[in-house]
Amino acid sequence: MPDSKPSDTRKAPLKLRRVAIDTYHENVAFLNRNCELYRAEGFQALSKVAISTNGSRIYAVLNVADDDAIVGVTELGLSEQAFAQLGQPEGQLVCVAHTEPPQSMDAVRRKIAGDRLQIDEFRAITHDIVENRYSRTEMAAFLVASVQNGLDREEILSLTRAMTETGDRLRWDASLVADKHCIGGIPGNRTTMLVVPIVAAHGLLIPKTSSRAITSPAGTADTMSVLAKVDLGPEQMHQVVNKTGACLTWGGNAHLAPADDILISVERPLGIDSEGQMIASILSKKLAAGASHLLIDIPVGPTAKVRHMNQALRLRKLFEFIGDRLGLHLEVVISNGSQPIGRGIGPALEARDVMQVLENAPHAPDDLREKALYLAGRILEFDPDVRGGQGFHLARDILESGRALEKMEAIINTQGAVRAVPSTAPLTIDICATQKGVITAIDNYQLTRIARLAGAPMDLNAGVDLYKKLGDEVE
Amino acid sequence: MPDSKPSDTRKAPLKLRRVAIDTYHENVAFLNRNCELYRAEGFQALSKVAISTNGSRIYAVLNVADDDAIVGVTELGLSEQAFAQLGQPEGQLVCVAHTEPPQSMDAVRRKIAGDRLQIDEFRAITHDIVENRYSRTEMAAFLVASVQNGLDREEILSLTRAMTETGDRLRWDASLVADKHCIGGIPGNRTTMLVVPIVAAHGLLIPKTSSRAITSPAGTADTMSVLAKVDLGPEQMHQVVNKTGACLTWGGNAHLAPADDILISVERPLGIDSEGQMIASILSKKLAAGASHLLIDIPVGPTAKVRHMNQALRLRKLFEFIGDRLGLHLEVVISNGSQPIGRGIGPALEARDVMQVLENAPHAPDDLREKALYLAGRILEFDPDVRGGQGFHLARDILESGRALEKMEAIINTQGAVRAVPSTAPLTIDICATQKGVITAIDNYQLTRIARLAGAPMDLNAGVDLYKKLGDEVE
Repeated sequence: MPDSKPSDTRKAPLKLRRVAIDTYHENVAFLNRNCELYRAEGFQALSKVAISTNGSRIYAVLNVADDDAIVGVTELGLSEQAFAQLGQPEGQLVCVAHTEPPQSMDAVRRKIAGDRLQIDEFRAITHDIVENRYSRTEMAAFLVASVQNGLDREEILSLTRAMTETGDRLRWDASLVADKHCIGGIPGNRTTMLVVPIVAAHGLLIPKTSSRAITSPAGTADTMSVLAKVDLGPEQMHQVVNKTGACLTWGGNAHLAPADDILISVERPLGIDSEGQMIASILSKKLAAGASHLLIDIPVGPTAKVRHMNQALRLRKLFEFIGDRLGLHLEVVISNGSQPIGRGIGPALEARDVMQVLENAPHAPDDLREKALYLAGRILEFDPDVRGGQGFHLARDILESGRALEKMEAIINTQGAVRAVPSTAPLTIDICATQKGVITAIDNYQLTRIARLAGAPMDLNAGVDLYKKLGDEVE
Repeated sequence: MPDSKPSDTRKAPLKLRRVAIDTYHENVAFLNRNCELYRAEGFQALSKVAISTNGSRIYAVLNVADDDAIVGVTELGLSEQAFAQLGQPEGQLVCVAHTEPPQSMDAVRRKIAGDRLQIDEFRAITHDIVENRYSRTEMAAFLVASVQNGLDREEILSLTRAMTETGDRLRWDASLVADKHCIGGIPGNRTTMLVVPIVAAHGLLIPKTSSRAITSPAGTADTMSVLAKVDLGPEQMHQVVNKTGACLTWGGNAHLAPADDILISVERPLGIDSEGQMIASILSKKLAAGASHLLIDIPVGPTAKVRHMNQALRLRKLFEFIGDRLGLHLEVVISNGSQPIGRGIGPALEARDVMQVLENAPHAPDDLREKALYLAGRILEFDPDVRGGQGFHLARDILESGRALEKMEAIINTQGAVRAVPSTAPLTIDICATQKGVITAIDNYQLTRIARLAGAPMDLNAGVDLYKKLGDEVE
């Protein structure tokens, strides 16, 4: 842009000040409107600046303040994330300079114009994103361009590689590191908390990191947090895995593919859906987590995230293509996504379902049990010593023998058990059918909405408990 | 989105507080992290909220603060623009609620997917934008979608209408209200300040609002501000026009097509260029300003905004199509954009050039004079009483007789003359050619950059003065 000054134009330094505002994944810098530098340099609100001191440099978007209580005329304020990134004490002298828009925006503009991008361009984009050189609008431009002209499979592969490289990679001392992922959209469906102890009880390494809910009533990390501490650092996570062969933790502390987290924080509120971004997001996280063998579950149903079989098949091919090219042993199962899995929807209710299955309780939800055994069986068959087709039976034996429960208890205790949350919330209401009949459809989307309105996942025991499922009679 | 609560969910009110941060065209609300409402409602940083009190309601993006000095636990803070929009005193009790993403984002997502949009959808989008219901990322999504799948001419027409309707419309007591617009990119080129007094001296009404520079070394409003007050409200502007038949003011106070200003503030930093958005932007502003007859100048040159004749011709057809449909008498001239027009680049230097031409000074820049006479002549021919082809001569007579200068002085004095800015800056440097020859090319883009680095437009007398132009010999 013609109006950018070179980034090495620097003036008298300003004193660093922490401004206790949480601007989420965006770095914000604050200058006082009467700051001499602001006046001389012709900074504009929302222009991008580089802040440097002591050999470290960060990028931020500029806000202008008229209140000395926020930032004085000789100070530069930084929002919490930016302040932490710069890693310098308050009062430190810092230099502020105009900065060019990130070079890689040229590639984004070419993507907007319809070009295919190469791996180096994706690398430059994800690198600049992690460096906070992109504004949220620039990321939105990249995302929309990826939806609209789409990413072909070579581009998805490049993006996956580039996103993986933006963060750390976990290393495990095993040739077979199992992992699973489900393309969400189905409430309940807490199979991970069953699959992990079954697979680990068999002896396969399965260090599982999960997300917290963003738009759902509970992520696996939320549900697991009812039973155990989940926000472990990479160090602690390794300890748990070394001891139990597994873990069930929240992935947010591990700095895995951070470009993905940042892009998701822009993509979700926009409500746009890029298949390419989704695949790259999932696979980059799994690669970074050190997985060698991955099972992907795609539930298909009229109110699931994937609504048609042909879409599921296209996704499967894309996953397979990219998995092969990345040297990841990857299998995809397409499952029935027509209704919630299990009875409870919400962290504590789902944790109750999981424990009932592990305890082989007679009233444990059968659909959750069957699906978990099926998925665990498929993962067990990654083991060269397991005969093809025997995985399900093996998984069932492990569950019925109580070894899965034992393993789960070991995982919980090693991560750190938490005080039990009652699965019954203080306020409950029964919703009964007003007429006799058979249940022919359940809307996942509406149940998700109701469970969230009830307070899930913030209130751990809020949610919905389903007494009837598809095909059941009500009267 | 499944996680949005209905917008009428309200809790205990909070006390309104002004947070003196200028967040430009984005409304920002601040809650303290320990605010009970924040904790109970599960607000997230960057989620959108509706703030209402006393029958007025605004929308804002939420930031979370950890400092009582910014916002206390029983307070709701609003950034300056948001505070002004709500129009309530500090301490007023306000309600804060989650808000759904704007309904019209559905249309944006369909545009991303490749659909054509109808006028009602453009109306909903621009309405929501002006109501601050769009985040900057949502606007970026709309803009990128408009570039990528493009807007066809019916869509541009709809967008123009919709943007015009978002603001006020100026009304003038004349059947012929002339206006002009130049598709920028050429430094200098201050023809407007010559065309307006010539046309007004002839007796046509020409109430001209202009912009300040965004990426150029000077907008017409910047250059005019060297001579007169330009930030007039609609009331004062009417007074000037009633008295002199013209004005040369800054358009920012007139609330004309405000959706356009907001979109531009997102589009410029992205460096993306949507022909459709540009045409809608120009024509909506002109319609809102009450123009009935409009001359559009498209300079074409290797370093101008429009680089090829075929692009200029396509633009011309689009302008003509939409002008006709809007009942606007519109003509397009395609001019030579291969070099700057006039000698000076920067507000005071350009004002000097303009006054030299008006004063018929022998050393006045001839190219500026000729181009202004040509454009003024074309506008004069909008007058039914002027014979086709006679406009140029008529314009020249008006200029040479001193009537244009007289009119300019009347405009300056009625708007309010300002103390003269010396056209020579305190620091100057001569850049001489290092070898003998003939000038064969001038890069508009580089000259723009140099003039801005010198300080234009913030320092009124900063800039570049050209002693030689294309075809001149240097030695």
